[in-house]
Amino acid sequence: MRVLGIDPGLRNLGWGVIDMQGSRLNHVGNGTCRSVGATLPERLLSLHEQLSAVLARFAPDTAAVEQTFVNKDGAATLKLGQARGIAVLVPAQAGLSVGEYAPNTVKKTVVGVGHADKDQVAHMVKIQLPGVALHSADAADALAIAICHAHHWSSKRVVAAGSARVEMGA
Amino acid sequence: MRVLGIDPGLRNLGWGVIDMQGSRLNHVGNGTCRSVGATLPERLLSLHEQLSAVLARFAPDTAAVEQTFVNKDGAATLKLGQARGIAVLVPAQAGLSVGEYAPNTVKKTVVGVGHADKDQVAHMVKIQLPGVALHSADAADALAIAICHAHHWSSKRVVAAGSARVEMGA
Repeated sequence: MRVLGIDPGLRNLGWGVIDMQGSRLNHVGNGTCRSVGATLPERLLSLHEQLSAVLARFAPDTAAVEQTFVNKDGAATLKLGQARGIAVLVPAQAGLSVGEYAPNTVKKTVVGVGHADKDQVAHMVKIQLPGVALHSADAADALAIAICHAHHWSSKRVVAAGSARVEMGA
Repeated sequence: MRVLGIDPGLRNLGWGVIDMQGSRLNHVGNGTCRSVGATLPERLLSLHEQLSAVLARFAPDTAAVEQTFVNKDGAATLKLGQARGIAVLVPAQAGLSVGEYAPNTVKKTVVGVGHADKDQVAHMVKIQLPGVALHSADAADALAIAICHAHHWSSKRVVAAGSARVEMGA
């Protein structure tokens, strides 16, 4: 089971791919799509092309995108929304299921608390994916989202199979 | 010169196509993409497919998307942003230039004042595109955006050619 995590952003869009075998997680790849272009259409197109290339290269089975924090800056929220539209569209176009997780859920799953800072998240990502080299802070967040999706996925499968919860530990 | 106007929305996305010959405008088509699906990925994918089909059918030369009003409801702005990302991406994927106009600019161009209501806009769209049957309020807005883009385009061409401003009248 291969999982793609995406941390959406118009300027920098982080991505991370992990493999899940039972409760075991392995790092596959991570990186950052940096939007190229002077205009919004060019930048969205650039993100779409780069993220589509990631999908084509790693062929994940499922994807997850962070449920963007809605702050009080409407213009920033609109920009983020436009990038998030692309982040959700690309895996949907590839026929994948796309999970959505709030930042607090991601942090709770990966770090154990919902208010962890970026450094803590990156630290726990490194512990759970030994040997990983993080491309950027956004790529680290994307791997955290992938880990979160993998845990929720296996937890759902465990529940569906009626097995003991102890199988869920990563 | 064929112009596609798009009024973005996650639930209902209006589109309108007009032809411009000199200062003369003709209606070609208008309609509404209604997003199908229970989840956000399904709805964005549905909008992408429907809007791509409009592009394939009418083969416009340029496109314009309304610059969404950023209101104080962050969740609504995020939803709109995601739909707007698709609305901008699709014509960019087809290699078209994509203009962006604030709602007030559209209204000023089509109605003459920036604070016109939807009925006034629809009324002036009908006057400027004789015989048009409006599919929906969103489609009427999309045609208004197309008219606005056509006027700005011809005005830019007129300026570029050093001709008199009187040529711009529709």
